[in-house]
Amino acid sequence: MPETIKNISRAPFRRVVQDLSENKGANILRYGWGKPDVISLGQGEGCAPTPDFIADACAQAMRDGKTHYGPVLGQPALRKEISDYYKRIFDLDLPSNRIFITASGTTAMHLALTSILDAGDEAVAVTPIWKNLLGAVEVAEAHTVQVAIDYIEDENRWLLDLDRVFDACTEKTKAILIVTPSNPTGWYMCENHMKRLIDFTRERGIWIVSDEVYNRAVYGKPRAPSFLDVAEDDDLLLVINSFSKSWAMTGWRLGWLVGPAFAEDVIRDIALYDNMGPPTFTQFGGIQAVKEGEDFIQEQMDQWQSNIEMLMARLGKNPRVKIARPRSTFYAFFKVDGEEDCIAFTKKLIDEGGVSLTPGCAFGEECKGWIRLCFAVSPEKLSKAIDRIEKVIGA
Amino acid sequence: MPETIKNISRAPFRRVVQDLSENKGANILRYGWGKPDVISLGQGEGCAPTPDFIADACAQAMRDGKTHYGPVLGQPALRKEISDYYKRIFDLDLPSNRIFITASGTTAMHLALTSILDAGDEAVAVTPIWKNLLGAVEVAEAHTVQVAIDYIEDENRWLLDLDRVFDACTEKTKAILIVTPSNPTGWYMCENHMKRLIDFTRERGIWIVSDEVYNRAVYGKPRAPSFLDVAEDDDLLLVINSFSKSWAMTGWRLGWLVGPAFAEDVIRDIALYDNMGPPTFTQFGGIQAVKEGEDFIQEQMDQWQSNIEMLMARLGKNPRVKIARPRSTFYAFFKVDGEEDCIAFTKKLIDEGGVSLTPGCAFGEECKGWIRLCFAVSPEKLSKAIDRIEKVIGA
Repeated sequence: MPETIKNISRAPFRRVVQDLSENKGANILRYGWGKPDVISLGQGEGCAPTPDFIADACAQAMRDGKTHYGPVLGQPALRKEISDYYKRIFDLDLPSNRIFITASGTTAMHLALTSILDAGDEAVAVTPIWKNLLGAVEVAEAHTVQVAIDYIEDENRWLLDLDRVFDACTEKTKAILIVTPSNPTGWYMCENHMKRLIDFTRERGIWIVSDEVYNRAVYGKPRAPSFLDVAEDDDLLLVINSFSKSWAMTGWRLGWLVGPAFAEDVIRDIALYDNMGPPTFTQFGGIQAVKEGEDFIQEQMDQWQSNIEMLMARLGKNPRVKIARPRSTFYAFFKVDGEEDCIAFTKKLIDEGGVSLTPGCAFGEECKGWIRLCFAVSPEKLSKAIDRIEKVIGA
Repeated sequence: MPETIKNISRAPFRRVVQDLSENKGANILRYGWGKPDVISLGQGEGCAPTPDFIADACAQAMRDGKTHYGPVLGQPALRKEISDYYKRIFDLDLPSNRIFITASGTTAMHLALTSILDAGDEAVAVTPIWKNLLGAVEVAEAHTVQVAIDYIEDENRWLLDLDRVFDACTEKTKAILIVTPSNPTGWYMCENHMKRLIDFTRERGIWIVSDEVYNRAVYGKPRAPSFLDVAEDDDLLLVINSFSKSWAMTGWRLGWLVGPAFAEDVIRDIALYDNMGPPTFTQFGGIQAVKEGEDFIQEQMDQWQSNIEMLMARLGKNPRVKIARPRSTFYAFFKVDGEEDCIAFTKKLIDEGGVSLTPGCAFGEECKGWIRLCFAVSPEKLSKAIDRIEKVIGA
């Protein structure tokens, strides 16, 4: 406690933000940064910089003087371009007024939750889930009820028992939070389950907040099912998306939210007082990305697919390792026999192996013992990282 | 109410975000956008695009592959550069760990308030004040108690009675919100008042949240007094700043917060779940701005100073107009005799004059009848705008 405020009885910050639960993933990431010669596969991004055709469009927009304030919910041209993209790739008719450009996928999530969750409300979260979603619920002073996707050992795959999601909902439930395709398991929800879930929430007046930032990163298909496929225009559905993953634009902090048209004014008002919208010129990079990005997406998918083959040929055949073949995303989620404490184990991997991964317990209560590895890297880097893991766990 | 949720008893959104008070400034701005041939001096930004030396540094950073995730509180090089800038321009020693880079000045404000204000808390706001600060307090479900800076007719200047600020504070007061230099009056707080205020808040355990985005836009001095001049390192002080105004970077959405070192972890945690930090490559533009921006700042100030002379020679001599010479910022705040309803009057100026200004009532309860004009434009545009105002009010 600082000297000058020692005699003040109350805490300087809100109790809720002072007492946020530990961010175990971020802590291990930082632990790894402190060590020399550590290969980090701990963060959710690829090695590749943003492709030139996107960066060039952004630089040109700057030269064209697109450096002034813009509309809070984004450039009309980008909103229109994303509308066209949904028509072209998803065969969905989403008018521009349902597409809200945000200053990152995280911002999309934050605006969605800020519009819905009052203190004391409940949100049901399908886990393992991205820690930031859980953290944002905490900041909103709401409670998370976690329902885990199960690892089915016999079938070596992940499966969600939808009835457990229904059972977890109470009178206090305002939203169900789902990341599909799932970071970190690579599971994604099938259209039939989406239909059943949206029928359920429609009846109960519960929002679905669906984080679909990996919806182009699905193997053997051009895209994963989306809740937008099964929803009516005015369902209580907010879909989070981002340029970060499919277009290698993590450092751009550019995302979007798809919602019902009646949400437009509410999201605009919150964003106005929250951040006043994303930068102006970066959105012109975003336009180019969705317009011309298909070849790049395919190249990335080909590389990630071949990295999966390497992973399954090595970790997948390791007698100590449980790992389901990732059906989507660029994460492998695995468990090593005899290593039940994933915090201690990820530290050991850093200290003894020189490779930084993410502890599963960062993604929810029931994921203890699991480890996440991001394979959106060059085959050489991945191979070297697996060598290091094998040094610790055996081959 | 949408068809599918008609039978749901509860409101789809949080009551507080559905019932936000009207944003009168934004409404009039939109009203003006709808009309042909309207000169807008209604938004808080200049005509000039961002200078090339800043845009080039950003484009170079993109080419250098600075397109990946970065630290939530900003690039260490930018935090260090701003630390150096405070030493050079303000003669203040602020280590990097007290400087938090944010995805806009608005974001800095939002993070500051989110760290402090619980539902039901009170914030004392010195008005007229930027509407977004009032809006952000509303979203936080806290209450604003407004204390107005007075227009002293005899002396034709703005004056704050500090005792009224002290008197407005109660047991529930968590923060005092001040914009100094003041948008829209051009008033700024003197160092002596800052000392008295910080002594008061130190004793009471109240935060000062000081929006100092115009602190380089003061006439006849290189910079305005800052609360940082009079504060101890660990006082309950959060200072909001932004690249928008002094470096013509409104469309960049880049700002910063200066706080006590003990706030670093709290602000980082909130920002992590809120937006995960500003874009990576734009921050390299920010580095160049604070490093090499002094000539540009001086050029802008010279132009704004000469625009003030024009304003005072024309509006200042208009028998119907009350206007104090702006001591800072790029706003003229004035009142026209016989025009008491500033909403109706700003609409009339758009409809009959073709010039869009901002109604004073957007800045607080006691500012009815006043009008804000942004003069950060070319002399030609300003002259034409004054012609149009005179067409409506007479010369």
